[in-house]
Amino acid sequence: MANEKDNTRYKPRPISGYPEWLPEQRAVELQWLDTIRSVFESYGYCNIETPSVEELDALTAKGGDEKEIYTLTRLHADPETDKEARLALHFDLTVPLARYAAQHFNALTFPFKRYQMQRVWRGERPQKGRFREFYQCDIDVINIDHLPLYFDAEMPQVMYDVYQKLDLPEDVQIRISNRKILTGYLEGLGVAPQNMTAVTRILDKFEKIGAENVMRQLVEEVDMQAKTAEKALALASIRGSADGIAEALGGLGIENAVMGEGIEELVFVLESLSHLPEGAAVADLSIVRGLDYYTGTILEAVFPHDTGFGSVGSGGRYDDLTGSFINRKMPGIGISIGLTRLFSRMVEQNALQVEAGRVSPTDILVVQQNEAAYQAVQATARILRSRGFNVETFHSATKMKKQLAYAEKKSIPFVWFPPAEQGGGHEVKDMALHTQQPADPEGWQPENPEILCIRKKM
Amino acid sequence: MANEKDNTRYKPRPISGYPEWLPEQRAVELQWLDTIRSVFESYGYCNIETPSVEELDALTAKGGDEKEIYTLTRLHADPETDKEARLALHFDLTVPLARYAAQHFNALTFPFKRYQMQRVWRGERPQKGRFREFYQCDIDVINIDHLPLYFDAEMPQVMYDVYQKLDLPEDVQIRISNRKILTGYLEGLGVAPQNMTAVTRILDKFEKIGAENVMRQLVEEVDMQAKTAEKALALASIRGSADGIAEALGGLGIENAVMGEGIEELVFVLESLSHLPEGAAVADLSIVRGLDYYTGTILEAVFPHDTGFGSVGSGGRYDDLTGSFINRKMPGIGISIGLTRLFSRMVEQNALQVEAGRVSPTDILVVQQNEAAYQAVQATARILRSRGFNVETFHSATKMKKQLAYAEKKSIPFVWFPPAEQGGGHEVKDMALHTQQPADPEGWQPENPEILCIRKKM
Repeated sequence: MANEKDNTRYKPRPISGYPEWLPEQRAVELQWLDTIRSVFESYGYCNIETPSVEELDALTAKGGDEKEIYTLTRLHADPETDKEARLALHFDLTVPLARYAAQHFNALTFPFKRYQMQRVWRGERPQKGRFREFYQCDIDVINIDHLPLYFDAEMPQVMYDVYQKLDLPEDVQIRISNRKILTGYLEGLGVAPQNMTAVTRILDKFEKIGAENVMRQLVEEVDMQAKTAEKALALASIRGSADGIAEALGGLGIENAVMGEGIEELVFVLESLSHLPEGAAVADLSIVRGLDYYTGTILEAVFPHDTGFGSVGSGGRYDDLTGSFINRKMPGIGISIGLTRLFSRMVEQNALQVEAGRVSPTDILVVQQNEAAYQAVQATARILRSRGFNVETFHSATKMKKQLAYAEKKSIPFVWFPPAEQGGGHEVKDMALHTQQPADPEGWQPENPEILCIRKKM
Repeated sequence: MANEKDNTRYKPRPISGYPEWLPEQRAVELQWLDTIRSVFESYGYCNIETPSVEELDALTAKGGDEKEIYTLTRLHADPETDKEARLALHFDLTVPLARYAAQHFNALTFPFKRYQMQRVWRGERPQKGRFREFYQCDIDVINIDHLPLYFDAEMPQVMYDVYQKLDLPEDVQIRISNRKILTGYLEGLGVAPQNMTAVTRILDKFEKIGAENVMRQLVEEVDMQAKTAEKALALASIRGSADGIAEALGGLGIENAVMGEGIEELVFVLESLSHLPEGAAVADLSIVRGLDYYTGTILEAVFPHDTGFGSVGSGGRYDDLTGSFINRKMPGIGISIGLTRLFSRMVEQNALQVEAGRVSPTDILVVQQNEAAYQAVQATARILRSRGFNVETFHSATKMKKQLAYAEKKSIPFVWFPPAEQGGGHEVKDMALHTQQPADPEGWQPENPEILCIRKKM
């Protein structure tokens, strides 16, 4: 039983890996979520949410083993009588989407374009920029049988728009590759199919552990010859734009049909992005994306001046994931914006424009000049609210100095004085301009409406 | 390791107690969330979110034992080396808020008015209208030392606004009581302090199990005399408006200081709601609210014509919860809108106005008349998007009939034809009016803008 003594055991403290923001920070995060949502909707993606949990079997079906999955147990569960399926928190939004599309197949319109912005959980060792609970903002398209390459081109475009609209203080670069190039190239080098996953995972560490270590692991862990390992690495050093990329890849001297297909796809995607500023989206053959399920286009977004930070967005094409749940061909492609990673970086760098006023959405504080004015205060607030303003009423008829200090502390831009007695008039004070004048709650408009709560301006 | 064979083990299926909506349903849920958020902000509440988990000790400190708590375990945790605190999913948003306010005490402005709209988890037996994962939408105010009664009056007002703005097809009634009346009355009847919680919990079942069963449980489980039990029940039958309530309570013939205080508070709250339509908010002494931590005003919202469905919103004052985490007096009051309960009822009753078009946020589909038009299609879409429209581009240069059928199927209101060849002009087709005319992507406006995606109209 809970009792007073129990309470003394627990003292509030942060939980490592589980971020929590102050109201003024959350106000910006909320604005980010709104912005991302509106970019996603501007491309016609519809929203869905899936439960936070999936059956463990669904999560481990494809690629889930590499994530640190959290499983759930009911505190008072009786193992004798509770024969429930084992539930676990999802570690991304792609596997749940694949399950969703398979489960609701008959109710959806294909190509199914959806966005999803939810928390995901990974029990990884908490470290700078890594969280155990974080927001991901995803779009994906899933189609039946065939998914046109047009969608591969749409993904980096949407990503670009998101980072632009978030108005980040740092440049983001979208790096694009294609799994078919890597697979075909490795095939061409004679890597056996059963070694493909292991080789891919080692190459994926290129940016993190460097060329030398990748070489060593290829030789030691998958028995690759040093010369072959060198060639495998040669691919990873190729970067560039639409123009030179096919030529550079041709220069590697491997002829392979799958690789050729990958090059064609990559060039198409790059060409479709030619209207973006130089360097905004580039081919980068070093990117691999660890997840098993990617089969074609792969992409990730990084800060080019701080690649060590890792990706702040990523995605790719997965031709077999959804189909594995329903036994028919359902290729998909998607991207994920790592909202929490990106946001927490801005918090740490003090780069958020936490403007005065954001700590509260209040536009107007209606003050109370005496006890008898209570009903007038409430009635005034109701009128102003019905006109779309965000309105607080001061919670007691205390000294006016104290009420004004509250408005100041919360950066509330306007203070409203309802009639202090029968027959009196309304007045409003502009806290920034220090002016006070008569006003009618039914008709008043601020001279500087841009000062009002940001939500109202959307 | 994941492999193809593993996949065949798992077939997609719903998880009992974990609701999941189709895109057209989710579009309405999203609109509800936006509406609730805007009502909360219209009263000046700021947003916060807390992690989905708390340390188990925090959750069980007050009232948590009665909820079915889910604890988390990492799938690959090593019990030898992992000495982490035990984490559990929160079962409401009130305990996390109390912990938050205590933890961030120095960074917050008091009275701290916050709203929070998050999922919560309860491992209860799934049944109609009961979920294991669901959204709660809460507002609370926490202050230091003293929390004015004004906030008690604000809570039902905000609740009323929420249900109004959601435009529900059924009337909601807000029922209000005060724990002090119950406590004082029971004190006056001679109920011993150590029996107070047990008696309260039995009385809480009044609506669910009926007077007779409550009587029996009072007599059998807490050894109450039949006559006293009858008197305890007499309180529960009192309902009414501000006018008659004090008199009716006086008629019970118990004089008790705590009860008197409770009556005064209740009358104040009711009087502040006198501008609401008759029956929208009433005193109802049968409501108790099971949670230990309530100390004053308590309220719940029900469908008066279907009280058996239970509450769709509830709340109350808790003078000791937050303080228990920080060792100082921090009274609070709050309400919680049971979004998922309410929403799932509307889904079941087919009462959602799932208008055509809501399955997708797309305003305009830009079609592609031939392969060569790809760049023109993309450029046109970019212009329209930059002007605030939600725009999809068709994903291949297939037969126009097929492209139009796609627009029709997704109820996209406008189809845009960019120039099919060099020097050609743009045309736009209104799918509802079946009219097609020349248009300039830089300047076009629909004649019926109300047909555009609902998000844009906010």
